[in-house]
Amino acid sequence: MAGNSFGTLFRFTTFGESHGPAIGCVVDGVPPRLPLDEGFIQAFLDKRKPGQNKYVTQRQEPDRVQIKSGVFEGLTTGTPVMLFIENEDQRSKDYGDIKDKYRPGHADYTYDAKYGIRDYRGGGRSSARETASRVAAGAVARRVLESVPGAGITIRGAMVQMGPHKVDRANWDWSAVAENPFFCPDRQAAERWADYLDGLRKSGNSVGAVVEVVASGVPAGWGEPIYDKLDSELAAAMMTINAVKGVEIGAGFAAAELTGIENADEMRVGPDGKPVFLSNHAGGVLGGISTGQDIVVRFAIKPTSSILTPRLTVDRFGNETEIVTKGRHDPCVGIRAVPVGEAMMAVVLADAYLRQKAMAR
Amino acid sequence: MAGNSFGTLFRFTTFGESHGPAIGCVVDGVPPRLPLDEGFIQAFLDKRKPGQNKYVTQRQEPDRVQIKSGVFEGLTTGTPVMLFIENEDQRSKDYGDIKDKYRPGHADYTYDAKYGIRDYRGGGRSSARETASRVAAGAVARRVLESVPGAGITIRGAMVQMGPHKVDRANWDWSAVAENPFFCPDRQAAERWADYLDGLRKSGNSVGAVVEVVASGVPAGWGEPIYDKLDSELAAAMMTINAVKGVEIGAGFAAAELTGIENADEMRVGPDGKPVFLSNHAGGVLGGISTGQDIVVRFAIKPTSSILTPRLTVDRFGNETEIVTKGRHDPCVGIRAVPVGEAMMAVVLADAYLRQKAMAR
Amino acid sequence: MAGNSFGTLFRFTTFGESHGPAIGCVVDGVPPRLPLDEGFIQAFLDKRKPGQNKYVTQRQEPDRVQIKSGVFEGLTTGTPVMLFIENEDQRSKDYGDIKDKYRPGHADYTYDAKYGIRDYRGGGRSSARETASRVAAGAVARRVLESVPGAGITIRGAMVQMGPHKVDRANWDWSAVAENPFFCPDRQAAERWADYLDGLRKSGNSVGAVVEVVASGVPAGWGEPIYDKLDSELAAAMMTINAVKGVEIGAGFAAAELTGIENADEMRVGPDGKPVFLSNHAGGVLGGISTGQDIVVRFAIKPTSSILTPRLTVDRFGNETEIVTKGRHDPCVGIRAVPVGEAMMAVVLADAYLRQKAMAR
Amino acid sequence: MAGNSFGTLFRFTTFGESHGPAIGCVVDGVPPRLPLDEGFIQAFLDKRKPGQNKYVTQRQEPDRVQIKSGVFEGLTTGTPVMLFIENEDQRSKDYGDIKDKYRPGHADYTYDAKYGIRDYRGGGRSSARETASRVAAGAVARRVLESVPGAGITIRGAMVQMGPHKVDRANWDWSAVAENPFFCPDRQAAERWADYLDGLRKSGNSVGAVVEVVASGVPAGWGEPIYDKLDSELAAAMMTINAVKGVEIGAGFAAAELTGIENADEMRVGPDGKPVFLSNHAGGVLGGISTGQDIVVRFAIKPTSSILTPRLTVDRFGNETEIVTKGRHDPCVGIRAVPVGEAMMAVVLADAYLRQKAMAR
Repeated sequence: MAGNSFGTLFRFTTFGESHGPAIGCVVDGVPPRLPLDEGFIQAFLDKRKPGQNKYVTQRQEPDRVQIKSGVFEGLTTGTPVMLFIENEDQRSKDYGDIKDKYRPGHADYTYDAKYGIRDYRGGGRSSARETASRVAAGAVARRVLESVPGAGITIRGAMVQMGPHKVDRANWDWSAVAENPFFCPDRQAAERWADYLDGLRKSGNSVGAVVEVVASGVPAGWGEPIYDKLDSELAAAMMTINAVKGVEIGAGFAAAELTGIENADEMRVGPDGKPVFLSNHAGGVLGGISTGQDIVVRFAIKPTSSILTPRLTVDRFGNETEIVTKGRHDPCVGIRAVPVGEAMMAVVLADAYLRQKAMAR
Repeated sequence: MAGNSFGTLFRFTTFGESHGPAIGCVVDGVPPRLPLDEGFIQAFLDKRKPGQNKYVTQRQEPDRVQIKSGVFEGLTTGTPVMLFIENEDQRSKDYGDIKDKYRPGHADYTYDAKYGIRDYRGGGRSSARETASRVAAGAVARRVLESVPGAGITIRGAMVQMGPHKVDRANWDWSAVAENPFFCPDRQAAERWADYLDGLRKSGNSVGAVVEVVASGVPAGWGEPIYDKLDSELAAAMMTINAVKGVEIGAGFAAAELTGIENADEMRVGPDGKPVFLSNHAGGVLGGISTGQDIVVRFAIKPTSSILTPRLTVDRFGNETEIVTKGRHDPCVGIRAVPVGEAMMAVVLADAYLRQKAMAR
Repeated sequence: MAGNSFGTLFRFTTFGESHGPAIGCVVDGVPPRLPLDEGFIQAFLDKRKPGQNKYVTQRQEPDRVQIKSGVFEGLTTGTPVMLFIENEDQRSKDYGDIKDKYRPGHADYTYDAKYGIRDYRGGGRSSARETASRVAAGAVARRVLESVPGAGITIRGAMVQMGPHKVDRANWDWSAVAENPFFCPDRQAAERWADYLDGLRKSGNSVGAVVEVVASGVPAGWGEPIYDKLDSELAAAMMTINAVKGVEIGAGFAAAELTGIENADEMRVGPDGKPVFLSNHAGGVLGGISTGQDIVVRFAIKPTSSILTPRLTVDRFGNETEIVTKGRHDPCVGIRAVPVGEAMMAVVLADAYLRQKAMAR
Repeated sequence: MAGNSFGTLFRFTTFGESHGPAIGCVVDGVPPRLPLDEGFIQAFLDKRKPGQNKYVTQRQEPDRVQIKSGVFEGLTTGTPVMLFIENEDQRSKDYGDIKDKYRPGHADYTYDAKYGIRDYRGGGRSSARETASRVAAGAVARRVLESVPGAGITIRGAMVQMGPHKVDRANWDWSAVAENPFFCPDRQAAERWADYLDGLRKSGNSVGAVVEVVASGVPAGWGEPIYDKLDSELAAAMMTINAVKGVEIGAGFAAAELTGIENADEMRVGPDGKPVFLSNHAGGVLGGISTGQDIVVRFAIKPTSSILTPRLTVDRFGNETEIVTKGRHDPCVGIRAVPVGEAMMAVVLADAYLRQKAMAR
C-alpha cells in the first residue's frame, strides 16, 4: 500500500527508475487461458515509444518487453504476469546538472522533502518513463476485456486539444488518429498543430494538451458504488499519469453550466428492448455504474516542465539559482499520454469486469 | 473491497439508504488520544443539513450524530469510531412514482442493471443522503490533522460557479462564505445567484455548479507516488461525491492552454530557508507529493436530475414513458456539496499524513 | 487497514466495546437478492449467547441483532449490510478493580503500551464480546454459500478437547453437539467434561480447549495462491479469535511425524469421473486451493485468563501487586468459540467463493 | 488482490515459476535511506539455496539476486525494490512424467481444477522455489527492523522436530544451528537426525518437521487488533509456506491442556520500571499486540510429497494410475523452510513496525 500498485482484482505493481537497469510490472489477477505473447504487448508499447518523430523525446529506447512469468504455451495461467523492459539508452551525462537543483514543475523538490534522498538521473522514479510499464499492463487488460462474453469492447484515445487549439468535432475521424504524430482525430487540426508545436519547440518552450479516451461496448452494470465508482476509478487512474492536472467524465466541467432540463440524458427503448439514451452527458456512468453507453473521459496535461528557457529555482543547499533543462524532452508530453490513457482505461475496465463477475448473480 | 470504504490507513466505511432506519459509518485508523465528542462532529453536519433555506431540499432531518464506539472519556482510543445517524423524515409516499420508472440522470437504471434489485425509496443507497456519513468522518479526520505537529492546517471550501455564473476572484472573501446560503466567497455574486436560482427553482429546473476546496498549511512531503498520488487520491475522493463529473488540481484544465514558460512555478528561498514558490499552477502537488503550498481542488457538479419538468424515460418493464420527479430536491445540489468536499479533503489528508508517518525516517 | 476488517471481497468491519452502547459490523460485498432477515441471523447469535448455562459467563445479553441497511423487502440489495447489537447488561461496577491493574493473559498491558489509553470496562475492545459481531457476519456469509450453484455446503463445529481430555473419535456423532453445553460430539466425553469443568469452576480456575470446524461440500478450486491460500486465510481467521494460540489444517502438527508414504492422500476416480481421495491428511486444501474434500480446521484456545485465584501482576503506575479477576467469566472460553469458529469458516469460504467467481473462465 | 502479495505497508509481490526464465519480487513500502546491496540479500538466499548437501534437492541454482530498482548509491530511495533471480538449472526433462498425472499431496489437481491450465514443469508456480523470492524480501525487511530506534531486534529459526524426533530443549544452543545441515539447535539430535534421514532418503521416503522461529527485542505495542493481530499475521504468513499444515504461538496447542492458573504469565516490575513477565506462554503476543517478550512461532511441515515410492493417483483424463516422483527432491522439506520462516517473521514484523509508526502518538 505504498502507492506503486493499481487495481483491486486486476492489479499491477510497477517498479523501476528512468536510468536504472530496468522497468516493468507484475500483473496479478489475470484470469487463466487468455492468449498472450510479447508481440501483442509490444504493439502497444510501440505506440508510446520515444524517438519516433521530432515532436517527442529523442531518447532511443526500443522498449522491448519480455514476459518472465504467468504465461505457459501461449496462454495465461492465472499466476502473476511479470513484464520486464530493460533500459538501454540511459545517457546519464545529460542529467548531471539537475543533481542539486530543483526543476520547477518537476517532483525534484517534493521527492527530497518526502524521502530525503532521490535518484536524480532522468527524474528517477517520477519520470514519465514509468508509463511504459502501464502500457504493458494495459495490453494484458485488453486481453481480459476481449474475454467478456458478447461485448466487443473497444478503447480508443485521441488528443483533442494542444495548447489553446482544440479539434473541430465535426471533423472527427478515428482513422485519422494513426496518420499523424499527435494522435489527432481532426486532420486539419493536426496540420496546424504541427506548425504550432514546431515554433514552440524551436523557441525552447512547451505546451499543454487535452486527451480524450472512449470505451465502447462496455455493458451496463460495471462499477462499484460508493467509493469505487467507475468514474472515480477513472479519475484516479488518469490523475496518476505524469503531468495530468484535471479529469472529466462526459460533459464534465461543462455540466456545471447546464440546467437539469438540458443535462438529462432521456431514455427510450431500443430495438433489443434495452434502454437507449438520447444523449450522453453522463459519459456512460450513472451512480458510478456503467450505463452501456460510451464511457468518455478527458484529461488535461500541463506543459512539459523541462524547457530550454531559464527559470528561477533553488538548489538543495538552500541557494537561489536558475535552471535550463537540457536533454531530450517532449515539447508536448500530452502526445505520448494518449496510449497511456488508453491503457489506464483498459485496466480500470478489466478490474471493474472482474469485480462485477464476483458479485453478479 | 466492494466499494463502500475510503482510505488506506485512515479508512471509513459507510452504510445506509435514504429511507432505511439509519445511515452512518465506521472510521478505522483513528490515532488514539484525540479529543472527540458528538458536538464537534455535529457542527460539520449542521453545515450540510437539509431544510435550512429555500435553496436546498425541504426534507427535515436533524442529522443528529451518535458516537457508538471508539471514544472513552472524551478521547479516541485507537479502536473504530462508529458514527450513527438515524433517519427521521423518510416520508416514503413521495417516492412511490419512481418505483418502476428510471429517472434520467439518476442511478435507477444502473443499479437495476447491476444488482437486479433496488431500494427505490428516495434513491436508496445512491441518494446524496449518504454524504452525511462522510461529513461525519471528515470531522474525525480534522481531529487527526489538528494533531500534526506545528502544521496549523485549515480546510475551506466555497462555491465558485453556479451555472454559467462565476465568482469574481477579486472579490474573494473567505468570511463571506458563511454569510450566504451558497457558500459563496463573493458577496455580489451571491446576490445574483439568489435571483438566478429562484427563477430556476420556480420553473421546475435546476443547475450545475463548481466547488473549490483549499487546504492550507499542509507540509511538503505528503502523498504516495505513483498510484496513490495526493492529487489522484483527491480526484478519486471528489469524484465519489454524487453528481460530480470533473475534478481539477491547481490550474487544472487551464494548464492545457499554457506554455511551459507560463506554467512553471518558479522557486525562491523563503525567510525560513525553505523553498517558496512564485505561483501555484501545480495546486500544491508535484509528482503526487505536497509542495507545502495551498492544495487547491475544484470539482464540477451536474445539475440536480430530479426536476419538475417532464423528461422522457423508460420503466423497468421495457415501456417508454415520461417522468416528473416530485418531492423535496435541491435546485442546485452543488451547494450542499461544499461541506462534503471539505470533508473529503480532510479524509484524504488525514490518510496521507498517517501514511507519511509510517514511511518517514 | 487499521485491523478491524476481515475479508477481501466479502468483507466485514466490526466496531464496539464490551461496555459501550453497542457493538456490530458493516458487511460489504454481499451479493444481491439473497434472502436475509433478523431471525436468520439471530439463530446463530443465540448459539453463542452468554448466560445460557453455568459453564459460560452469567452476563445477561439478549444479543438482539438489528439490520440497519442493505436489505429491502427481505432481500439483500448488494449494498452494505449493517448489523447492530445494543449492549444491555454492562454492569460496569464489576470491573472497577481492573482500571489500573494489568490482568495477566489479557490485553490490558499491551493496549496501554500501544495506544496510551484503554477502555478498561470489561476489556473494552479486546473483550470476546466482539465475537458476537462476527457470528452475525458469519450468518450473512452462510447465505452467500447457500447461493453456490449445486454445492450444498455445510459448516459444523465441535469442541474436541477440554484441557487434557479429548473426544473419542469412534464416538463422534454430529447430532450430539446440540445436546450438551459443550458442543461436544462425543456424549460420553461430554458427561466427563461436565464434572471436570464443575471442579475447575468451583476452585476458581479455568481450562483450555481445542475446537474443530469442518466444511463439507466445498467444490475444488477455491483459494488464491500464494499468499491468500485458503489454509492461510483460515489460519489467520481462527487466530483472530480471542485466546486462540494455534491452528492446524487436516493432519496438522501430526503431519510432522508422518512419512511421505503415510501422508500421501492417494487418488482414485469417483463414480462421477472426478478424483476422489483415499484419505484427507491435507484437510481439504492442496497448494492453498480446495480439493473438494472436507475442509478441516482445528484451533487451540488457552484457558480463560480471568480467574478467581490471585496472580502476580503490576499496575500502570509501575507498582507490583496481585489481582483476582472477579466478575462473570467463562471457565472454558473454548465453549463459546465453537459458533465463532463456524462463523469464521463461513466468511473465509464466502470470500473465497466470490474471488473464485471473479477469476473463473 | 489475487493472492501474490503479502503485507500492508511493507508489502511484496512475487512472481515466477519453477522452470520459467526467472523468479523474484517487488518490495513496496521500503522506507528511504536504508543501506541495501545485493551481497546483504545474497547471504540469506545462500542459507536456503538448494544443492548444498545430500539432505536437500540436488538442483544446482546459484540463486543470484539482482536489485533492479529502488536503490541509489547504496541506499533505498523509498521507491519499489525489485529483486530478480534468474532460473539457471531448469532441466525440464525430469518432469515430463507429471505432465498428465496428478501427484498426491501436490497442487497439481487443484491448480487444474481452479485454472483449467497449469505449468507442470517442476510444479510451476506452486513449487517451493517461490520461497527464494520471500527470503530476498525478508532480507529487506531485516533492514527495516535494523532501523527501529534502540530495539536491537534479532530473528532466529531452528528445526525442532524431524518426524517423531524432537530436540531436547536442555541442549538448545543457537550457535549449533549453523553447524549442521538441519538448522538444529541440539547437536546430539542433529547426529541422530542425520542417520534417520539417510535411511528415509535411501528407501525413497520422506518425513515431516517442525520449525521454530523466535524474534527477540521487539518492543511492546506492535500489532493491529482485531483482524490484523500480530499472531494472526504470523499464522497467515507461516501457513503460506509450502507444505505447512499447522502454526502455533507460544504454548500453542499445549495451552489447551493448561489451567488458567498454570497459563498465566505473571508480571513483575523490571529494573527499568517496565513490566517483566515470569513466563511466556503467550509467545510474546497478548490481544494481538506484542508484549516486549520473545515472539515465538512454530509451524509443522508435512513430509515431502515427491517420493520414489509408487502412490495411487489419477491423470487429468480421468484414468486411474500410479506415480513415482523422480527428480531432485528434499527428503525433508522442513530443512529449507527454516530461512523461509525467518524471512516471513521479518516481513510480518517490518509491516507491524510501519503500521505502529503510522498510528503512534
